[in-house]
Amino acid sequence: MTTPLSKNPKDFAIATIGSHTALQILKGARDEGFRTIAIITPEVRRVYESFKVADELIEIPSFSDYFSIEDQLIEKNAIVIPHGSFVSYVGVENVASKMKAMYYGSKGILRWESDRGMEREWLKKAGVNVPKIFSNPDEIDRPVIVKFHGAKGGFGYFIANTPTEFKERIKEFPPESEYAIQEYVVGVPMYVHYFFSKLTGELEIMSFDKRYESNADSIGRIAAKDQIEAGLRTSYTITGNIPIVVRESMLPMFFTIGESVVELSKGLEGVPKGLFGPFCLEGIIDPNLNFRVFEISARIVAGTNPYIEGSPYTALRYTEPMSTGRRLSREIKQAIEQGRLAELLG
Amino acid sequence: MTTPLSKNPKDFAIATIGSHTALQILKGARDEGFRTIAIITPEVRRVYESFKVADELIEIPSFSDYFSIEDQLIEKNAIVIPHGSFVSYVGVENVASKMKAMYYGSKGILRWESDRGMEREWLKKAGVNVPKIFSNPDEIDRPVIVKFHGAKGGFGYFIANTPTEFKERIKEFPPESEYAIQEYVVGVPMYVHYFFSKLTGELEIMSFDKRYESNADSIGRIAAKDQIEAGLRTSYTITGNIPIVVRESMLPMFFTIGESVVELSKGLEGVPKGLFGPFCLEGIIDPNLNFRVFEISARIVAGTNPYIEGSPYTALRYTEPMSTGRRLSREIKQAIEQGRLAELLG
Amino acid sequence: MTTPLSKNPKDFAIATIGSHTALQILKGARDEGFRTIAIITPEVRRVYESFKVADELIEIPSFSDYFSIEDQLIEKNAIVIPHGSFVSYVGVENVASKMKAMYYGSKGILRWESDRGMEREWLKKAGVNVPKIFSNPDEIDRPVIVKFHGAKGGFGYFIANTPTEFKERIKEFPPESEYAIQEYVVGVPMYVHYFFSKLTGELEIMSFDKRYESNADSIGRIAAKDQIEAGLRTSYTITGNIPIVVRESMLPMFFTIGESVVELSKGLEGVPKGLFGPFCLEGIIDPNLNFRVFEISARIVAGTNPYIEGSPYTALRYTEPMSTGRRLSREIKQAIEQGRLAELLG
Repeated sequence: MTTPLSKNPKDFAIATIGSHTALQILKGARDEGFRTIAIITPEVRRVYESFKVADELIEIPSFSDYFSIEDQLIEKNAIVIPHGSFVSYVGVENVASKMKAMYYGSKGILRWESDRGMEREWLKKAGVNVPKIFSNPDEIDRPVIVKFHGAKGGFGYFIANTPTEFKERIKEFPPESEYAIQEYVVGVPMYVHYFFSKLTGELEIMSFDKRYESNADSIGRIAAKDQIEAGLRTSYTITGNIPIVVRESMLPMFFTIGESVVELSKGLEGVPKGLFGPFCLEGIIDPNLNFRVFEISARIVAGTNPYIEGSPYTALRYTEPMSTGRRLSREIKQAIEQGRLAELLG
Repeated sequence: MTTPLSKNPKDFAIATIGSHTALQILKGARDEGFRTIAIITPEVRRVYESFKVADELIEIPSFSDYFSIEDQLIEKNAIVIPHGSFVSYVGVENVASKMKAMYYGSKGILRWESDRGMEREWLKKAGVNVPKIFSNPDEIDRPVIVKFHGAKGGFGYFIANTPTEFKERIKEFPPESEYAIQEYVVGVPMYVHYFFSKLTGELEIMSFDKRYESNADSIGRIAAKDQIEAGLRTSYTITGNIPIVVRESMLPMFFTIGESVVELSKGLEGVPKGLFGPFCLEGIIDPNLNFRVFEISARIVAGTNPYIEGSPYTALRYTEPMSTGRRLSREIKQAIEQGRLAELLG
Repeated sequence: MTTPLSKNPKDFAIATIGSHTALQILKGARDEGFRTIAIITPEVRRVYESFKVADELIEIPSFSDYFSIEDQLIEKNAIVIPHGSFVSYVGVENVASKMKAMYYGSKGILRWESDRGMEREWLKKAGVNVPKIFSNPDEIDRPVIVKFHGAKGGFGYFIANTPTEFKERIKEFPPESEYAIQEYVVGVPMYVHYFFSKLTGELEIMSFDKRYESNADSIGRIAAKDQIEAGLRTSYTITGNIPIVVRESMLPMFFTIGESVVELSKGLEGVPKGLFGPFCLEGIIDPNLNFRVFEISARIVAGTNPYIEGSPYTALRYTEPMSTGRRLSREIKQAIEQGRLAELLG
């Protein structure tokens, strides 16, 4: 990786692939004065032309062909912003071992967030309240959800309250099925969008959302009687996001948890710079206001998309409309101006 | 209809009746420099005085008395913007045959959107994925909803999965009942707000919403056990709208479907100018991310009301807060300035 | 209470305790030119430092220690803004009898809103449609919810449709249990945020929200079959708020009800100035569009927090982003400039 010496943000471009949060990222970058590049496929061209956020469109047949155009990005002095689709198309290992373009964020953190076991270890060390996993069905002492690996369509799970119920229900599945027994947490989904500034060392809360999942977020529109008649089960395909604000008295807890997760990331193997930039804790608020965390996303999440013009929270702190996409470009701009860009590149 | 020759938007007024999306339409018109007229009844006066979006209030005893004041509108050089309540109070046939004031949009399209059969024909020709209708109960091969005509209060339907179930359940209803058998699509409701510019020939995606329906959007707050005890069934009265954003990877599909619907409208009988201006596709996103479309509204929809200051999508493309109401006034303004207003009048 | 003579808003500070709607109130006050004071505890300091809305932080060990720092507020010429947490921590009786600092609003109204019986009397006198209470189980003629006093965790209720069902279900509870029988209203929750200006005598509609309650707003994500297996019941812990807009044709009714509630407040015992400033009617819209009101909050509510940058409704009337928090500071500012501050102090 070359370390560019220019202290002028105009000498750099911000690039990402056209999906997930690309509209927000590119608009934010342009608002901060960067040139912007959308890496697109023929199928998505229409979108990035219509919304006019990219100064340049670089087309590839499929997003997995990213490496075929990486040289162009390097030539254009582009900083690549990873998002969920980017990581998914390019691959965690390819990002870590093959990417040569400037990359915003800690590459090593992707291994920790994409491995269920490593993620759980990180969160537990940070004191985060994760749902209990039962390794032995005889230990079931509360409602659990039993999930079958690779099951599709929402039929691959059942609920049990006791070891006896478990043994009764498991008979309906093929004997060789692999499954996990997880505490069944009942409460409202909550996604907390953070930004940790590597330059200032300060954690910011950017916004909150809940996902809009098919059919989970509509099955309840069907009367219980009709659900049972139609044999309906829940599935969890993400289709969008809904803006929410949280009870103000929960904010201290969200700061504490977020700061602990950042602090603990500094000792993670293969992550010398720790976690920085945007990240998200994804969990459930139970009726006693405990935040039970299922997952961390160590990069920008699509739940920030309702806030392209800023959130109620960023309106408190910033005078301009500050999306998470814009916040990260501002960080990069300030790093360039201070000659500290290398600190933000993974 | 007179074709006004003035190229000055200030010589025109924008008028609509005080309901549905009138606040948004009138604010948008004023922001674009038009004089604004709210046609009101005594009952709604308070609203349009309080929100201060109308330069003039014209009062009639009931909205169905529209024609009693139409001469005033013509005299004031007013362009009438139709919305759902306007069409409902004035009547599809009256709009087409009796209205003499300048009218924004294709009058003929209202016949296509208000007739279930014609609407379905249009959508199917455009390649839109509409739910299957079963004419013979013996063909039932998936969950269906059987709806009885004219039924009120949400009790006039049942769910069936097979021909046998159908025959069992239908016995509970009077033998002479008329009904329709429709595929039962399970997934999240999604309303896509489009704007097709007649001047530029370009389709824009403005925003998305989900409706807030009573009791559909609250019955799920009641535990299944209690629903069954209380004998609850779903009803679908619209009470408001909730803002949402969609998964960015679905945008190409929404552009494709919207453009196809516009393209196909050009050949519809009695619609020489085709569909233009704001419209909405209303459907369900199923767990496989298919967009199953139930209905089209060929005019501005109330789902755009959360976005009076613009949506996350219009913030990408426009530098001012761009509601759908403002977008259509901008179109009219540009048409006036270009001497092309007649192209936008139905 | 001293009546300050200054007509310069800069001679005053706006203060509140750091919880509930403090971020919004303090930002609004600053936007109107006031000095701002957050009264905090060590636990919440992080939040009010991060969001940068307070010019000064006054720390106390616990919010119930408010009176230990009240002299400081008086010395700083601070006007205290009450919110839900303020009232809860300081206490209705302490506010009325012990508070010496300048207090925005009618102190006496808190007694009416915090007593179920008095609140119901006020609302009924104002012609508000409140749910029916049954004093005799034999009168049950519709679905009712039977709630047990002091029950926790959402298990302390049952649903009944007839006197017979009631007598069957009540057997499951200890014979000495105290309970209330309330009409079971099914429909969508709706929270209407008003502002009544004492200076102009005009009622404004500011915004609407629905709460985000655990687990009420997620239990419907669980298929009916699974809910029953897991023995789930509904609970109602507030975790946040979701922005909504309402069907425009309902606005006249919301104005009428709000004005009636304000008018009736003028005769309430111990409330010489009546209700003024922000308040909220909390209820259900049933499938026939009736607004059934459960409760009134006679001060700013947390449901206004999504609108720190204004709502779709305030965007119609104001040229600046107008939150409810800012609206009340504007009212105070205008009162100071007009020498009428005493009218706004309770």
